[in-house]
Amino acid sequence: MTRTVYVNGEYLPETEASVSIFDRGFLFADAVYEVTSVLNGKLIDFEGHAVRLARSLNELGIENPISKEDLLEVHRELVRVNEIDEGLVYLQISRGADSDRDFVFPDPEKVKPTVVLFTQNKPGLAETVKPMKVISIEDIRWGRRDIKTVQLLYPSMGKMMAKAAGADDAWLIEDGFVTEGTSNNVYIVKDGKIITRGLSNDILHGITRAAVLRFAEEAQMEIEERNFTIEEAQNADEAFFTSASAFVMPVVEIDGKALGDGAPGKVALRLREIYLDESLKKAV
Amino acid sequence: MTRTVYVNGEYLPETEASVSIFDRGFLFADAVYEVTSVLNGKLIDFEGHAVRLARSLNELGIENPISKEDLLEVHRELVRVNEIDEGLVYLQISRGADSDRDFVFPDPEKVKPTVVLFTQNKPGLAETVKPMKVISIEDIRWGRRDIKTVQLLYPSMGKMMAKAAGADDAWLIEDGFVTEGTSNNVYIVKDGKIITRGLSNDILHGITRAAVLRFAEEAQMEIEERNFTIEEAQNADEAFFTSASAFVMPVVEIDGKALGDGAPGKVALRLREIYLDESLKKAV
Repeated sequence: MTRTVYVNGEYLPETEASVSIFDRGFLFADAVYEVTSVLNGKLIDFEGHAVRLARSLNELGIENPISKEDLLEVHRELVRVNEIDEGLVYLQISRGADSDRDFVFPDPEKVKPTVVLFTQNKPGLAETVKPMKVISIEDIRWGRRDIKTVQLLYPSMGKMMAKAAGADDAWLIEDGFVTEGTSNNVYIVKDGKIITRGLSNDILHGITRAAVLRFAEEAQMEIEERNFTIEEAQNADEAFFTSASAFVMPVVEIDGKALGDGAPGKVALRLREIYLDESLKKAV
Repeated sequence: MTRTVYVNGEYLPETEASVSIFDRGFLFADAVYEVTSVLNGKLIDFEGHAVRLARSLNELGIENPISKEDLLEVHRELVRVNEIDEGLVYLQISRGADSDRDFVFPDPEKVKPTVVLFTQNKPGLAETVKPMKVISIEDIRWGRRDIKTVQLLYPSMGKMMAKAAGADDAWLIEDGFVTEGTSNNVYIVKDGKIITRGLSNDILHGITRAAVLRFAEEAQMEIEERNFTIEEAQNADEAFFTSASAFVMPVVEIDGKALGDGAPGKVALRLREIYLDESLKKAV
């Protein structure tokens, strides 16, 4: 089956969906994105993604070309026509296709941002719990990881390094401390306490992170936002990561060392359950 | 006039030239590029650019989809049909358009790299000497600047910061030392000595840089490859930058401080002359 995708106001078969070779997303990685999960045909945390999208655009001085209401409608229409029960909606907005290549931003009166959305069908998304093995690699990404840009080459390379090492993902290390996973926020649990790095320009301000920490707090769990090393992570009782597409996922091995008894941790599994329950209630 | 551009084996009007929304150049900035100057209708330093392109692709594990001979033919054909006497040829190769979005690299047997080339007409390119004013900004780019990827958002932002400050370009500072300009290698001259940062992963290995340093050596000029601070640059006798599209360009002001007498430096102008003379002799 051919997907229907959305490009600049049009619904098109995916095989016909393209952008100009002068699109700044293609030439300069001058673009931001969001990924929103779909469960039971409804959007999870849509509001949070819309707010972060607006922030990313604002940080780069890209005019937001689409209202939250219209964006929600496009998401819903794509979910409907592609019959997505469980899956993802990917959204990307670039600064647009200029008439030529120039580092200088084009006049926003003349060049309008490019808006692209498409769905990914992922049956079993909510049920799938994969105990993850991770390796650690150096974090050499640019300094504004709080802006969700498409400069994703190094995260891609990191996933390939993990794969080559027989692992599932990589945790990134900067100045001796873990920043985050290649496309997720990371946590360790020690003596019942959840430890995760605090927000800054060094990491993505995860929508799922914010929700999970809120739920953890409501469930009277102790949370400590601070830096931690890979050695501390290896000696933790358990570890997990959060992302919009994986929700809460247990990590059972770090650089070859099994955590605790090597099975998914109780805190991770409990938080996953709460997150899915609570998010589904508010899904749109 | 509409340019003719090249996309994956086809010569097309620029208005019809596009790539799939699933192209990894668009979704992941998983692409590299080169810019080659054209003078008198001939290509400057083509060999150097072809060699660096092959290196960039190799570093990223992208199979080189086009032989040097074929690449030269495409460059020449675009120069011919677009009647370029002075200008540039831009070349970009991405890992290709996968059937879906996935951080994991696609099977190179199934997904072939995307090859895009287009020309830019720049009459007066060889004659134009613009005395440049630069500002300094923090270098927050990723750690592999030796690979010429399209992750150019920060260099773009840097040019905009320069523009906002009434300057022409920005020099990037890391750990207290100048790395390079937003899209060029930088030099200072003190007591007749040319000082420029040594090669590493921290800077682009400029094709023009290599040629200019070779010519400087042949002209018995003293060269010192080492780090320098912005303060040392401000107190230099002169400064300049090199790039494939600007050749050798004098810098006359750094963070508001005029260098020497505020006019383009002799060493810069002499090196520009030598570079243009020598490169034209070998142009193809």
